[in-house]
Amino acid sequence: MAVEIEHKYLVEVEDWNNVVAVKNVQIRQGYLQTDPNKTIRVRTKGNQAYITIKGKSVGASRLEFEYEIPVADANELLDKFCSNLIEKVRHYVIHDGKTWEVDVFTGLNAGLIVAEIELNNEDETYTLPNWVGDNVTSEVKYANSNLSVTPFSKW
Amino acid sequence: MAVEIEHKYLVEVEDWNNVVAVKNVQIRQGYLQTDPNKTIRVRTKGNQAYITIKGKSVGASRLEFEYEIPVADANELLDKFCSNLIEKVRHYVIHDGKTWEVDVFTGLNAGLIVAEIELNNEDETYTLPNWVGDNVTSEVKYANSNLSVTPFSKW
Repeated sequence: MAVEIEHKYLVEVEDWNNVVAVKNVQIRQGYLQTDPNKTIRVRTKGNQAYITIKGKSVGASRLEFEYEIPVADANELLDKFCSNLIEKVRHYVIHDGKTWEVDVFTGLNAGLIVAEIELNNEDETYTLPNWVGDNVTSEVKYANSNLSVTPFSKW
Repeated sequence: MAVEIEHKYLVEVEDWNNVVAVKNVQIRQGYLQTDPNKTIRVRTKGNQAYITIKGKSVGASRLEFEYEIPVADANELLDKFCSNLIEKVRHYVIHDGKTWEVDVFTGLNAGLIVAEIELNNEDETYTLPNWVGDNVTSEVKYANSNLSVTPFSKW
């Protein structure tokens, strides 16, 4: 078990185009349950896969339990048990000594780019890159579990 | 991923009292989701723990994905995310060369005893011990996920 603390910002396509990422990985994920009190996510991420249970968000913090599972199992779970899969490419960008994860969505969420920074504690400070926009940490419509139900293209 | 094929029978307390088990283990389990199309169970079983996703039952068969997780995580998931936990002692009984799992429920399901035999394929044959009663394989109220919602004591 861990507590996940992250802040989430929007990124405009034109601002993102000039940013250099150190690496990127393809992510495909779906939800066995989207209840915000206990979302259950299945994700393939490059050549690895995970099942993740997350509790209710309290501010920027959230209980998280994550277990690695075989990729073949994940693909079968996604195909048989999940609908409205989310596909995105995650880019890792270093800014001021910290790693930002920038998710460029495709499919039904194409056009949406979200940057997240994960913190070790709620008081940890960081500086904002000039390519991030509004802080949407507490806007539930940007939660991936909600994007799987109501994708960006339907807003 | 595996396909679980099992047959389930009721056992009367008076018939069970004379049966000798080769071993037994304490089980405590709860559900992150009770949707019969994709139940998600967290279980501690002796000093091990698992998260298990099961698909819809088709006859006696059911898709099953099971992953071992740390016992401390399982206890935290059970305490924080699950209600109406199921507690039972599972007894392993050998009959005619096959192992039967006999679950003696406690708590809100006290009085219920269920014997299950797991098969390798739908055509596998087996003989019935004289201590089993009605076949309840297809009776959904005996599914543990349903017992967590409507326990035996409320029937």
